[in-house]
Amino acid sequence: MPLKEFNDLADFQIPEVEALIRLATRLQQHPEPQALAGKVLALLFLSPSLRTLSSFQAAMIRLGGGSFVISPDMSIHGLETRSGIVMDGVAAEHLREAIPVISSYGDALGIRAFANRAKLEDDLADREYAVMRTLVKKPLINMESAIQHPCQSLADWKTMDELKVPRKGGKFVLSWAWHPKALPLAVPSATLHMAAMRGMDVTVVRPEGFELPQAIMDKARKAATQSGGSVRETADRREALEGAHIIYAKEWSSTRHYGDRVADAKLREELQDWRVDDPWFTTTRPDCRFMHCLPVRRGVAVTDRVLDGPRSVVVHEAENRMWGQMAVLYQMMGPGA
Amino acid sequence: MPLKEFNDLADFQIPEVEALIRLATRLQQHPEPQALAGKVLALLFLSPSLRTLSSFQAAMIRLGGGSFVISPDMSIHGLETRSGIVMDGVAAEHLREAIPVISSYGDALGIRAFANRAKLEDDLADREYAVMRTLVKKPLINMESAIQHPCQSLADWKTMDELKVPRKGGKFVLSWAWHPKALPLAVPSATLHMAAMRGMDVTVVRPEGFELPQAIMDKARKAATQSGGSVRETADRREALEGAHIIYAKEWSSTRHYGDRVADAKLREELQDWRVDDPWFTTTRPDCRFMHCLPVRRGVAVTDRVLDGPRSVVVHEAENRMWGQMAVLYQMMGPGA
Amino acid sequence: MPLKEFNDLADFQIPEVEALIRLATRLQQHPEPQALAGKVLALLFLSPSLRTLSSFQAAMIRLGGGSFVISPDMSIHGLETRSGIVMDGVAAEHLREAIPVISSYGDALGIRAFANRAKLEDDLADREYAVMRTLVKKPLINMESAIQHPCQSLADWKTMDELKVPRKGGKFVLSWAWHPKALPLAVPSATLHMAAMRGMDVTVVRPEGFELPQAIMDKARKAATQSGGSVRETADRREALEGAHIIYAKEWSSTRHYGDRVADAKLREELQDWRVDDPWFTTTRPDCRFMHCLPVRRGVAVTDRVLDGPRSVVVHEAENRMWGQMAVLYQMMGPGA
Repeated sequence: MPLKEFNDLADFQIPEVEALIRLATRLQQHPEPQALAGKVLALLFLSPSLRTLSSFQAAMIRLGGGSFVISPDMSIHGLETRSGIVMDGVAAEHLREAIPVISSYGDALGIRAFANRAKLEDDLADREYAVMRTLVKKPLINMESAIQHPCQSLADWKTMDELKVPRKGGKFVLSWAWHPKALPLAVPSATLHMAAMRGMDVTVVRPEGFELPQAIMDKARKAATQSGGSVRETADRREALEGAHIIYAKEWSSTRHYGDRVADAKLREELQDWRVDDPWFTTTRPDCRFMHCLPVRRGVAVTDRVLDGPRSVVVHEAENRMWGQMAVLYQMMGPGA
Repeated sequence: MPLKEFNDLADFQIPEVEALIRLATRLQQHPEPQALAGKVLALLFLSPSLRTLSSFQAAMIRLGGGSFVISPDMSIHGLETRSGIVMDGVAAEHLREAIPVISSYGDALGIRAFANRAKLEDDLADREYAVMRTLVKKPLINMESAIQHPCQSLADWKTMDELKVPRKGGKFVLSWAWHPKALPLAVPSATLHMAAMRGMDVTVVRPEGFELPQAIMDKARKAATQSGGSVRETADRREALEGAHIIYAKEWSSTRHYGDRVADAKLREELQDWRVDDPWFTTTRPDCRFMHCLPVRRGVAVTDRVLDGPRSVVVHEAENRMWGQMAVLYQMMGPGA
Repeated sequence: MPLKEFNDLADFQIPEVEALIRLATRLQQHPEPQALAGKVLALLFLSPSLRTLSSFQAAMIRLGGGSFVISPDMSIHGLETRSGIVMDGVAAEHLREAIPVISSYGDALGIRAFANRAKLEDDLADREYAVMRTLVKKPLINMESAIQHPCQSLADWKTMDELKVPRKGGKFVLSWAWHPKALPLAVPSATLHMAAMRGMDVTVVRPEGFELPQAIMDKARKAATQSGGSVRETADRREALEGAHIIYAKEWSSTRHYGDRVADAKLREELQDWRVDDPWFTTTRPDCRFMHCLPVRRGVAVTDRVLDGPRSVVVHEAENRMWGQMAVLYQMMGPGA
């Protein structure tokens, strides 16, 4: 099936996700260095990146094509994003021109957007990304927006398959972790949905004030109903971790004080013990794995000994970003597309 | 014909430009993803860029080769451009080394230079670019200098062909547009020449004090004589726009006060009504198109409703940058070169 | 022989270096634009670069593969390098994650590290690079570290071969040159070793206080013993230059005051006559060549007339960076690897 958009795992049926992962594994084992010969991926980064930036470039090279990268700091004094504005300030170009132009040079486009972190409903609706999306006529990949991160989810699913983490009956704990800043909801939202869609029993554990939004929880519950999994949320870490196959740590903003950085900072200042450490694994399954999307602040969100220990599969996840994305790119621009 | 330099449409005969456009269209319709296999385009940007940066990278990928980008901020504390200087300041490398080195890594080189905007005669003589040109032994592409922008002109010519804008009898209005800064003369000069060479009846309309230099006008008149077109200049917008097939807007410096930013700023501060808007099209032909090389400041040089309306072909022009440049690269490094 | 690491010419036998240079020349004369189809080189730059950045990218394109570049300023607020630290500052990612992740996307990895220039023994032991090296499981290229620069040495060896500079009996003068800053020891150390290994009679000439470290001299002497060359050091420039085939200039730190920038600056402030100029060649062989790894500060380390004159082969050396690196990449990832 030619793929026109990769925005949210929820847009796909479970067998479609499984097919993408099978394709990723096939391309990993049997390189096809001519599959995308002469094809161009345009990459627009409105936020900084390391994994996404390098894994997409590498993915295109492995398939025989190539990519180019645009970020606002490369452009003529930045890119304006606001609508209906008189551009008499610093920015010399508007996204309304930049996006159609960039996408005219590519056979597909990837956009890394950002979360405004002002109003929760705007970020839940992915307002900024939604506007950009209307400007694109080519196949489009969401490389992380305010509320989506489908490439991370695909990589994480593939990683758990390779580690033989059970789907049905697999216990997945998504834990809030400490961080000095109020980070976006994209990864926790996408991860929760992915694990639920994979049929796992998912527990979200977070301090009070950091509940995931109702819309996100409801969407994941619906996915769990179809997959045979389950979704619940708690503040009780001890109970949450019991019997876990996976601890997936992620830092995120207070939803109670969304957009209010002072109140968020005040709420989180007492929460520094939400740092994943060896004792967290006392009551998990003995073979419990530690997952994180990276980047991670060592000694802040997670201790060195967890990251450097045998439970950590963070680099495995990161590598799977590339293989998973190759499958997406192949479906968008490859022989079958 | 192998192509050694792409600097100025005036260096070519009309049939040679037509052949480049035919080649561009052929490569657009019939991809040749192996044509430049193993070939390298070196790209040196001394000024920031979005379209040029991405369209050249995409062009090389589509032809099976690749490119690399160097800009002063990537290098060791910047690139020195002045001659005969004792380099005891910040810059650790001189263009006299950087350019030969970079071009030794490529099969062709593209340079984006800049306008000094100090003395008009220096910029008309393209003094900075001329020095750099002497340092290059490979095929060389002018990616915009103080006074040239041949890639933009090639793209614009191709765009008008595709839109079936008439050559003989086609009325092309190059209009000055408002901008807070004193921008270079490269695009208006190159555009005027291109439209004259294409055989059109060209009117340059601009406020007093923003006349295009005599040398530029004379060169365009000579081209018009050969092509059967015509060239004139006026300050009367109403009269200029009557019956136009094309309004091509561009912001540029005062030539009366060239290099004097204070006097230029004073002269332009009353000229904010030189903002292209729907009423400009009242007396044009009904199917009159709006062109601009981008980037454009919305609400400043042009209104949103013109840019978002059906007359605007600015993204079409920008896309043709890539196809036109592919033809140039193909002639420089491809099978026939 | 598949190549797993390219770190130090001293790790190779003389015939192995000769074979790499033959391969480089072969690839220069007979392009193999499919040799590395679908292969990826990951490039990590912890210091700025021009030649290394562009020559590695060009090298991969010429062999049909590609590369991607990561530098700390592209990443999320920089990369942390210190061990065991609580990352509550600006840097959001640690090299301990970044390096394994980046190398998971490549078939080989190049790292440009830096010299701490605090303790001489740390830099001689290449402490920073050694830590990074432990994090990489892929073939690894040292793109310059505190004390190594093997790609420069390979290029310089090839350049002298092409210029028919004699090995046995060839007189190679490595001269300290003036510079306002205390630069690293990587190039002088690597260059000394290369010339000794090539069988030349090497004289290091430098002001008092800028002696090369004993360990570096001893290592080069050992190489000279095997190759039939010789190594000596002097402060007497007049005597050193007599009969030279090559003057290779390089700026470096005071070793007497290593890590003490104030004392280094004081020592060097009287040494501005260590600027290579035409009179330096009065007693050399008439066909004596001038070499420098670049970047070079004109009028500071070398005069314009030497750099622009017929003795200078600095661009030839720089071009050979690309051809030499292609041989290394071919041995790491190509058909035979």
